[in-house]
Amino acid sequence: MVEHTIQIRVRYPEVDAMGYLHHSRHLQYFEMGRVELLRSQGYAYTELEKNGFFFVVVKVEVRYRAPARYDEVLDLTTRIVRQTAVRIDHTYELKREGLVLAEGATTIACVDKSGQLCEIPSELTSES
Amino acid sequence: MVEHTIQIRVRYPEVDAMGYLHHSRHLQYFEMGRVELLRSQGYAYTELEKNGFFFVVVKVEVRYRAPARYDEVLDLTTRIVRQTAVRIDHTYELKREGLVLAEGATTIACVDKSGQLCEIPSELTSES
Amino acid sequence: MVEHTIQIRVRYPEVDAMGYLHHSRHLQYFEMGRVELLRSQGYAYTELEKNGFFFVVVKVEVRYRAPARYDEVLDLTTRIVRQTAVRIDHTYELKREGLVLAEGATTIACVDKSGQLCEIPSELTSES
Amino acid sequence: MVEHTIQIRVRYPEVDAMGYLHHSRHLQYFEMGRVELLRSQGYAYTELEKNGFFFVVVKVEVRYRAPARYDEVLDLTTRIVRQTAVRIDHTYELKREGLVLAEGATTIACVDKSGQLCEIPSELTSES
Repeated sequence: MVEHTIQIRVRYPEVDAMGYLHHSRHLQYFEMGRVELLRSQGYAYTELEKNGFFFVVVKVEVRYRAPARYDEVLDLTTRIVRQTAVRIDHTYELKREGLVLAEGATTIACVDKSGQLCEIPSELTSES
Repeated sequence: MVEHTIQIRVRYPEVDAMGYLHHSRHLQYFEMGRVELLRSQGYAYTELEKNGFFFVVVKVEVRYRAPARYDEVLDLTTRIVRQTAVRIDHTYELKREGLVLAEGATTIACVDKSGQLCEIPSELTSES
Repeated sequence: MVEHTIQIRVRYPEVDAMGYLHHSRHLQYFEMGRVELLRSQGYAYTELEKNGFFFVVVKVEVRYRAPARYDEVLDLTTRIVRQTAVRIDHTYELKREGLVLAEGATTIACVDKSGQLCEIPSELTSES
Repeated sequence: MVEHTIQIRVRYPEVDAMGYLHHSRHLQYFEMGRVELLRSQGYAYTELEKNGFFFVVVKVEVRYRAPARYDEVLDLTTRIVRQTAVRIDHTYELKREGLVLAEGATTIACVDKSGQLCEIPSELTSES
């Protein structure tokens, strides 16, 4: 299974008035996880965009188990769990020292510049 | 059924390089929907917090149907679909001129200042 | 003098762990002020962009006098104080019930799609 | 002179519809620069907060020279240029491969939990 783990330090403006990482920020972290997983396979998302391929998020699910706080260093593991000609499903685990803080799943779809669904470039699909 | 609709204009830094409202922003809009639904019932979330009651998001689901763009005025309808002693389930519809752009569902839980689950204040539960 | 005032309600994720509006958010509010001042003059920034004119910020200054907090409704007054063929200087006053919370000044420059300086469209310059 | 350089990779939602790092993000990067400069001296900002000392930004100035784009890795150098009993002045240089993208200056002030000005803890002032 294709997977990749990155570390992310929680930034001050990402934390809300309760002192917790705002729940919308998890989606931004997941996106970073996808980009770095792609990079670990030898691809830059910016190159895909230059070649006219974009990925849009069509579905997300997140379960929040415990809060993250400012300045904590978190481990995010991103996995590809399913892939079709036009879509990729990822799952995510966000942990702090082994404790699961959040679990997520997303479906992204490949679109062209006009936003129309298109096939994922073949070099990526042969990858996984 | 308790429901409330607000209008939100998409801001420039909320839009990504594709020109689309970033998918993490929908969760921030949903939060605004919950706060304004509460206000429409006569309660301010800030007052709840002063009284030691906080709501944390424990689960979210979003399906993205079509992109929103900078400066568009969107309609967000927030509904309470289920409520227990400690949790509230909301659903959301984000539309532009009648076209559904995204649908969402969240579960929020009532916690005290230390983050422990606690009962939702009775004036709110008798409300819905 | 061309000026325009808007109201902005502080959102939850805009507030940091101290409970204060994060100081970076003021620049986003100022941008909203510029956009709405332009709209009050009959122009949509999105239209300018469609016509190939963009405004980039080349300089900002902010003095923070007092904190703003979650859910407060603030008044932002935006003024055009100077305009050349390619640049516009604005000033800003952010207030809560008459109390000045922050004062700012920006210089924006007109650029084309490639990022090169270009003349501000004449309908805008004859405006102020 | 006390100075510290960090690397920051530009994230997707930090970039606006022009494809440029949004100008408000620079202030968030500068804050990261201050925090990491402090850490390089052996102090954690979170510890200061636990001890009742907070730093609020009272003044910022930024000059934007050139745009930064998604996924670029930038170098941010943060310097302490002046310090009084209650205030610290920092300057910043944000570069990409030696090219200056932005220069900034901030004044931060030490406050207690109630937001009142207070003296910077002595271990920090003896530091610089």
